Amino acid sequence: MTNELKGVFSPVVTPFGRDLSINPGLYVDHCRWLLSQNCGLAVFGTNSEANSLSVSERKALLETLVENGLPPSRMMPGTGCCSLTESVDLTSHAVQLGAAGVLMLPPFYYKGISDEGLFRHYSEVIQRVGAERLRVYLYHIPPVAQVPITLGLIERLLRSYPGTVVGIKDSSGDWSNTKAMLDAFPGFGVFAGSETFLLKVMRNGGVGCISATANINPARIHELYLNWQSPRAETLQTELDLVRAAHVKYPMISALKATIEVFSGESTWSNLRPPLTELGKPDARALALELRNLRFEMPGLSITRDRT
Amino acid sequence: MTNELKGVFSPVVTPFGRDLSINPGLYVDHCRWLLSQNCGLAVFGTNSEANSLSVSERKALLETLVENGLPPSRMMPGTGCCSLTESVDLTSHAVQLGAAGVLMLPPFYYKGISDEGLFRHYSEVIQRVGAERLRVYLYHIPPVAQVPITLGLIERLLRSYPGTVVGIKDSSGDWSNTKAMLDAFPGFGVFAGSETFLLKVMRNGGVGCISATANINPARIHELYLNWQSPRAETLQTELDLVRAAHVKYPMISALKATIEVFSGESTWSNLRPPLTELGKPDARALALELRNLRFEMPGLSITRDRT
Repeated sequence: MTNELKGVFSPVVTPFGRDLSINPGLYVDHCRWLLSQNCGLAVFGTNSEANSLSVSERKALLETLVENGLPPSRMMPGTGCCSLTESVDLTSHAVQLGAAGVLMLPPFYYKGISDEGLFRHYSEVIQRVGAERLRVYLYHIPPVAQVPITLGLIERLLRSYPGTVVGIKDSSGDWSNTKAMLDAFPGFGVFAGSETFLLKVMRNGGVGCISATANINPARIHELYLNWQSPRAETLQTELDLVRAAHVKYPMISALKATIEVFSGESTWSNLRPPLTELGKPDARALALELRNLRFEMPGLSITRDRT
Repeated sequence: MTNELKGVFSPVVTPFGRDLSINPGLYVDHCRWLLSQNCGLAVFGTNSEANSLSVSERKALLETLVENGLPPSRMMPGTGCCSLTESVDLTSHAVQLGAAGVLMLPPFYYKGISDEGLFRHYSEVIQRVGAERLRVYLYHIPPVAQVPITLGLIERLLRSYPGTVVGIKDSSGDWSNTKAMLDAFPGFGVFAGSETFLLKVMRNGGVGCISATANINPARIHELYLNWQSPRAETLQTELDLVRAAHVKYPMISALKATIEVFSGESTWSNLRPPLTELGKPDARALALELRNLRFEMPGLSITRDRT
C-alpha cells in the first residue's frame, strides 16, 4: 500500500447562478486559482455541496474540468453515494477521466451500520470498478455522515485491497482518532480533515490536509505543509487557525462563499442550493470585517476572474 | 388542503438477485400481493432500500409497475433525495406516471439544517415540478434522516402550498409529536409511521399508517384500520404488536426479508444491498419459530408466487 497523493487539497466549493444551476466558468476559474496556489482539487466534497448535485451534474462538471485542461493528476473527486450503483458509476467515471484518487463517503442514509456491511459496500464498489489504477481514499466524517469508518474496517480493507485503498480523510475533529490511524497503519495516507490538525498530522507521519478553508487560504496552508519542520511552523499554524476561526463561527459553506464573493467581486458566489442558505448580511459584514482586521487576502483571485 | 390517500401502505421491500440486481418479476408479484391484501404501495421508502438504488433504477422500477398494470392511484413513491435536481426528477417522473402522491424525505446529508433551508428545498421542488395534481406527503423520520420536519415547517408549507402539501408520515416513534401534528393541522393527512400507533392515530383524526411490517402483515393491519371503532380494536392492536415485536428485535429490513423468504419459499428474498446485511441463520430460525408460535401466516403469498 503506497499513498500517492499528498499536500493540501480543497473540497472545491460549487458556484451557482440565481437559478441554482451550476456556473461552470466560475468553477473552472476557482479550480485554476486553487492549483495556482499549490492546492489540489478534492472536488465533490462536503463543502462542494456535492450531495446537492445529481450524479449527472457531477459527471458533467468533472468532464468540464478535464476538457478545460485541468490536470486529473491533481484531482480527488468525491464519489461515495448512498447507493452502490451510483458509487460505482461515479467512481468508474472518475477513473476513466484519469483522476489520481477518489474520496469515498460511506453510504450514509442508514445509521447503525455494521463494519461487515460497510466492508461489503466498499468491496463491491472496488470489484465492480475493477480498475488497476483506482486509488480509494476513505472519508471519515461522523458529524455529518453519521456513519463512521472504524479502525477495524480500515484494517480489513487494507488486507483485502492493498494498493487500492490507500488513504483516508479524517474529519472527525477528534485528534485521538487521527493519531490512532497514523499509529495503526504506517504508510497509509492520512489527511487531516482541516488545517487545524495539519502540523500535528505532519509530525505524526500524515500526508497533508483536505480542508474547507483551503478554498480561501490555500497558499498559506501549503506554506505550513512545506515548512512543518521549520521553527516558523507553530506561528504559521496559529495564523491559519485565526482565519479558520473567523469562518467556523458561521455555517462553513455559507461563510466560504461569502468570503469568495468579497474577494472575487462576483456576487453570485454567495448562492447555495437548498437546504443550505447564504449568510445574512450582518454576518457577512462581520466576517468581512474580521478578515480585514487579520489582513487576510486571496492573492491572484481577481486576476483569475478578469480572465473569464 | 385535502388529503386524498388513506388506509394502510407498505414501503415495499425490494428483491435482489445474487448479483444484487433488482428482480422485477418478484417485485411486481409482491406489489400485487400487497394490493390484494388492501395495502397501498409506498414504494421507495426506507424499508425499500430506496437510497441504495440509483435514480435510474427507481424510475425503471416504477415504470415496470405501471407497465404491468398496477394502479398508480394506489402508489405513493418516495422521491426525496439529497439533491434538489434529483428530487425534482423523481417527483416529476412519479407525477407523469400518475402516482396518487409522493412521500418526500428532506435532503438528509447536511445536519442541523434550518427550517428556512428545508422550506426553500420543498418549495423549489414543488415549483419546478409545477403540476396541479402533485400531492406531497412529508416524511418525518429523524432516527434515520436526522433532519426533522418541524411543526413550524409544516405550517409554512401548508400556508404556501395548500392542496399540494397534503400529509405526512411520522416515523419519529414519538406519539406526542404525532399528536401535536394531528391537533395543529386538522384535515392534514397524518399517517402513523407504523401500525404500533395505528389505533391511536385513527382515534385522533389520522388517516392510516405506512409501515414496514405491512410488507408481511397487511391484511390484519387493514382489519384494524377498518375496525378502529369496534370493540375488537384493542385486541387487534395487541395482535399486530406481537408480530411487529418479533421483527423489531432484529434489523427491520433484514427481518422482513427473512420472513418473506420463509413464506414465499423464494430464497433470494433474503438478499440485501450493502451496507445492509441479511439475518444470520440463528436469528432467521428464531424469528421463524416465534412467528410459528404466533400462528402467523401470509395468506395467498404462495399462490401469487406460483403465478410468476
